[in-house]
Amino acid sequence: MLSLVLAESSLEIIPQNLQKHPSILSHAKRQQKKPSEMLLDNSWHFAAMKGIKDEIKRGRPDLVHVSVLAATDTPLYEMGQVGVHLHTTNNHTITFGRNVRIPKSYHRFAGLVEKLFRDGTVQGAENQLLNLDRETFPEMINRLGPSQVVGLSTEGKPASFEKVSSILDEKSCIVVGAFQKGHFSSQVQNKIDCLYSVGNISYDAHVVISRILYEYEKRHC
Amino acid sequence: MLSLVLAESSLEIIPQNLQKHPSILSHAKRQQKKPSEMLLDNSWHFAAMKGIKDEIKRGRPDLVHVSVLAATDTPLYEMGQVGVHLHTTNNHTITFGRNVRIPKSYHRFAGLVEKLFRDGTVQGAENQLLNLDRETFPEMINRLGPSQVVGLSTEGKPASFEKVSSILDEKSCIVVGAFQKGHFSSQVQNKIDCLYSVGNISYDAHVVISRILYEYEKRHC
Repeated sequence: MLSLVLAESSLEIIPQNLQKHPSILSHAKRQQKKPSEMLLDNSWHFAAMKGIKDEIKRGRPDLVHVSVLAATDTPLYEMGQVGVHLHTTNNHTITFGRNVRIPKSYHRFAGLVEKLFRDGTVQGAENQLLNLDRETFPEMINRLGPSQVVGLSTEGKPASFEKVSSILDEKSCIVVGAFQKGHFSSQVQNKIDCLYSVGNISYDAHVVISRILYEYEKRHC
Repeated sequence: MLSLVLAESSLEIIPQNLQKHPSILSHAKRQQKKPSEMLLDNSWHFAAMKGIKDEIKRGRPDLVHVSVLAATDTPLYEMGQVGVHLHTTNNHTITFGRNVRIPKSYHRFAGLVEKLFRDGTVQGAENQLLNLDRETFPEMINRLGPSQVVGLSTEGKPASFEKVSSILDEKSCIVVGAFQKGHFSSQVQNKIDCLYSVGNISYDAHVVISRILYEYEKRHC
């Protein structure tokens, strides 16, 4: 099965050293949640996040949500022909159980992921919906064991989505960055066999994901 | 310029007769908003919505949000080569100003649309970001004046996205339903010149939008 990895996704629980910041505390109170069980979100916690390490790559759960939907709402995913995996900036990895439907409602998605970070797993009636691990990007790739790792980034060799899909087989792994700005870290880049750029401009991750999976689907299904 | 219309979008302010329902009042209190200025949202207001007219086509602002992003985050939209228009189940229409970037954060999107429903317009620093009108679907199409109206629905003639994009020109209008279940109303259907079905299964609106705009972009840009 083809693998899609969302690398360095902007998805994490509010780190301990920010949990007492006034902007976090007031948001937590309104949400009736504990700061230690809430997702870091730039749109609420901007003041608290100012100047933290890797600031531009963090606190965008909205962007990760839309990117996940671009993958899991495709016929390819419904047919069980692509596995969707999430790697975060903090080296957590999330595995989606077969045919898990991710809620389009953001607050439901956030609730699901917050539960996952708290409990390590989210169980459905019949199967595991989501599973959380502590794993670096190279460890995750080694576990998946793909035939090749194909990355998409503006730093890559120019190619069309059609061209990239033509070199993919069902044991390949596609890597897309699920962060707002910046490039892959060297740890990610070092595990990528071929890096392609699919346009002159910087695409949103969800646009890249929907286009590459669509081209793969046309060719392989 | 190509037009994309999201028809019968599940986007409306909580109707007056539901504003005093306990599930609405408690949600409004928590959000520190007035029920008369909040979007109807099935994921919060399920109990209040039970049995209302056209229930399955209403209260899915999350779905509309993801569908709008699938259009406005494309290079085609950034190049000013597709106009995005929203028609709602209650016969409101929303026009997006040129190159308006829609927030990926759902609560920001909801805040923007709630402001639009309250004030009738959302103004940016230099131009109008969003504009609201009272208009039926046929009135909207007459105003846009396209060369042809091409609808996408499981009730249409089978065709691929490539095939549909091949018949589009830059004066065409594509119509996609931005609701969860059901089909176009007869008022919408009667204004459609050709109706196509792009798959055996029912696709999410955002998947249809991203694929048809991508095929159009490949052919015309």
